[in-house]
Amino acid sequence: MTRIRTRVAIVGAGPAGLLLSHLLAKAGIESVVIDQRTREEIETTIRAGILEQGTVDILESSGASTRVRTVGNRHDGIELRFEGEGHRIDFPSVTGRAVWLYPQHEVLKDLVAVRLAEGQDLRLGVTAERVEDAETDHPRVIAVDADGQLLEIEAEFVVGSDGSRSVVRPAVTESATGGYFREYPFAWFGILCEAPPSSKELIYSNSANGFALISQRNATVQRMYFQCDPEVDPASYSEEQLWHELQVRVPGTTLNQGPIFQRDVLRFRSFVAHELLRGRVALIGDAAHTVPPTGAKGMNLAIADVIVLERALRALLLENDARLIEAFPETALNRIWKAQHFSWWMTSMLHVAPDATDFDRKRQIGELRSVVESEAGKTYLAEAYTGWPLPQAG
Amino acid sequence: MTRIRTRVAIVGAGPAGLLLSHLLAKAGIESVVIDQRTREEIETTIRAGILEQGTVDILESSGASTRVRTVGNRHDGIELRFEGEGHRIDFPSVTGRAVWLYPQHEVLKDLVAVRLAEGQDLRLGVTAERVEDAETDHPRVIAVDADGQLLEIEAEFVVGSDGSRSVVRPAVTESATGGYFREYPFAWFGILCEAPPSSKELIYSNSANGFALISQRNATVQRMYFQCDPEVDPASYSEEQLWHELQVRVPGTTLNQGPIFQRDVLRFRSFVAHELLRGRVALIGDAAHTVPPTGAKGMNLAIADVIVLERALRALLLENDARLIEAFPETALNRIWKAQHFSWWMTSMLHVAPDATDFDRKRQIGELRSVVESEAGKTYLAEAYTGWPLPQAG
Repeated sequence: MTRIRTRVAIVGAGPAGLLLSHLLAKAGIESVVIDQRTREEIETTIRAGILEQGTVDILESSGASTRVRTVGNRHDGIELRFEGEGHRIDFPSVTGRAVWLYPQHEVLKDLVAVRLAEGQDLRLGVTAERVEDAETDHPRVIAVDADGQLLEIEAEFVVGSDGSRSVVRPAVTESATGGYFREYPFAWFGILCEAPPSSKELIYSNSANGFALISQRNATVQRMYFQCDPEVDPASYSEEQLWHELQVRVPGTTLNQGPIFQRDVLRFRSFVAHELLRGRVALIGDAAHTVPPTGAKGMNLAIADVIVLERALRALLLENDARLIEAFPETALNRIWKAQHFSWWMTSMLHVAPDATDFDRKRQIGELRSVVESEAGKTYLAEAYTGWPLPQAG
Repeated sequence: MTRIRTRVAIVGAGPAGLLLSHLLAKAGIESVVIDQRTREEIETTIRAGILEQGTVDILESSGASTRVRTVGNRHDGIELRFEGEGHRIDFPSVTGRAVWLYPQHEVLKDLVAVRLAEGQDLRLGVTAERVEDAETDHPRVIAVDADGQLLEIEAEFVVGSDGSRSVVRPAVTESATGGYFREYPFAWFGILCEAPPSSKELIYSNSANGFALISQRNATVQRMYFQCDPEVDPASYSEEQLWHELQVRVPGTTLNQGPIFQRDVLRFRSFVAHELLRGRVALIGDAAHTVPPTGAKGMNLAIADVIVLERALRALLLENDARLIEAFPETALNRIWKAQHFSWWMTSMLHVAPDATDFDRKRQIGELRSVVESEAGKTYLAEAYTGWPLPQAG
C-alpha cells in the first residue's frame, strides 16, 4: 500500500475537479487529482458543448484555456421553434452576454494539458473506493491504482468531483443515492453526422411529434437530438429513419444531411444530493447534481460550484477561516435549484410528454407564445441560458 | 308561445353579456339579454375581484361603470411569499399598469343599472333551453320564461355568455362538454370575515402547508383562501381551525381575525371549448373557458372576449363584413391560451400538489427565487397579471 499526503484530494478529473486543482494551485494550495479513466477516455468523453459567458471568463482569466475564442464559436442567440415558426432570442441585446459552443472534451484537453505542464499530481487509472474520516481534520481517500495496489491519500480536505456515480457521495450523504430525484418519461436520441450546420444558431423545436435540438460541433459536423422513448435501441433505426425523425420535428427548416457516424441515447434525470458537505468532504459537479440537458446547464453549474468551493478552501486552508466552507452548501444550492428549475422548465416547455393531453399541448403553445411575445419573457429565459452572474473569483 | 326578434340575442347576464349589450347599443345595434337568475341573484354572486387596467379602462370609457375608482381600490403590486419571506412585485414600475380590486358583483350592479336606464331589453328569470338554426342567418334561442311560457328569440346572431354550464355551448361544439380540460387535485377554501385587511396588497403565499391568498373586500371585510382538498365539507372546520389553517400558510405575517360570516369551497378547473363559433353563434366568457382563480384572469378574459366579438359584430351587422367574425376564434384563443398558461403557471408555482416530491418542492422554491431575483422575471409575471394589451375599442 502506498500512502501519500496532500492538502486537497480531488476525486474525478472532469472539468470541475481539474479546474479546482488549477485554481487551488494558483492560490498556492497543493492538490492531488485521481480518476479511474485514462487520459484518452477523459479527453474523448462526448458531453455538453454550451459554455456560459461566465464559464468562458473563468477558463480564460485563470489560464485554464486559451482556445475557446479560436476553436469555439460565440453564439448570440437561440431559436425557439413551434407551430412551424422560428422565434429568435437575441442574448446580447437582452442580457449583454452570449454563450460559446466549445465541447466539454475540448475543455478537458485544455485542462489536462495545463495541469500536467504545471506539474499537477494527476493520477489516472486510479479508482477511488471510499472516503474515510470525513469528519476529522484528516479525511482520507482509499483507492486502487492501475496495478491493483492500494493507494491511501491523506488530505486536509477531500472533494468529490467524480460524476453522477460518485463514490465520494456516500461519505457525505450517508447513502450512495441520497438525494432529490426526478425521472422523465423521455430521452434524447443524439447523432453526430458529417454535414455543415443546418442553422447558424441552435434550434430548440417543439413539434407535435416531440422535441428536437439542432446543434453543431463545428463547420463540418452537426450534433442533433430528437426526443425518444428512453428504452429505444439506438441501433434499431436506419439512417433514413433517423433523418425522418429529425426532420418531422423541425417543420419549416430543411436539415443538411450527411453520414451519421455516432448515435447514442441520453437519459434524462434531475438529481440533487441531500448534502453537499460533511466535515471536510464536499461534493461538486455531477457528483452533487445532474440536470436534464435541455437548458445546457450541466458543465456550467459544475464550474459555478468550483468558484464557490475554491474561495471557501482558500479561506479555510490559508486563513483557517471556516465560515465560507460552512456556507458552501447554501451558497451553491441557491444556484443549483435555480438551474434545476430552468432545466426542468425548458424540458417541460419544449418536450411532449407521452401522457400529454390536448389541453397540455395547447397550454404549452400558449406558454411559448407568452415567452417570445414578451421582451421580459425572452430576457428571463436568456438570463438563465447565458448564466446568472457568478461570484467574482479572487 | 311568445316570439320576438332582435339583432343579437345574448344568453347570460354576467359581465360579458351585459357589457356586450352595452357596447352594441352604443354602436346602434339592438340586442336582447336573457338570464335565468333574478336581479338579486345576479348582483350578489360572489366572484373574482381583480380587474386589469384594460378592463377598468373599457368599463369607464364606455360609461358602463363610474364607481371603480371611488368604490374600488387601486393595487400597485402583489406580494409573493415563500420560505417565510415576502417579495413584492411593483406593477407600475415594471409594466406602467396597475390592477383594481372591485368585486364582480359591483361590476354587475353598475352594468344592470346602466343597461336598464338605457332601455335594454333585459329579461330575467328566463331560462334558455337551446339554440336552433345556428348555421343560418336567423339563429333562434328557445327559452322558457318565469311563468313557464315558451319564448323564442329570432336574431341575426346569438351569443352564449351563460357561464360554465352554458346551454348555448352544444350548438357550437356539438356536445355539452366538448372542450380541452384539466382538473387540479386541490381547491380553495374561501372565507369572508369582519376584520380590516391584514395586508395593504394581496399576498400569494407558498408554504410547506400549501397555498394561501390573503385578499380583502373593503376596509372592514377580508377575503382569504387556503388550499384544501376538493372534497372537504366547508362546515367541518371550526373558526379556530380556519384561522389556524390560514395562519400556518403565511408564516411571517400576522392575520387580523374577526367573525367569519361566509365560507365556500372553490373547485379548480381549466377548460377551453373546442370551438368558439359555429355559423352565427359564438361563445364568450365562462361559456368558452374557465381558468383556475390563481391568476385573477376569469372576468378579465371574459371582457377581452367581448372587445374582440363586439368589433366583429359591428363589422358583420353594420357593414356586412364577415372577416372579423371568421377570425374571432383565432383572435380570442391567442389571449385565452396565454391566460390559461398564466393561470396554470401561478397555480403550479404556488400550490403544493398532494403528490409533490421533495424535488418538486425544492424546484418550486428555485422557480420562485428565479422570478423575484430577476427584474425580467417580475416583469414577465406582472405583464400577465396586469393584463396584456387589449385590442383598442372603436
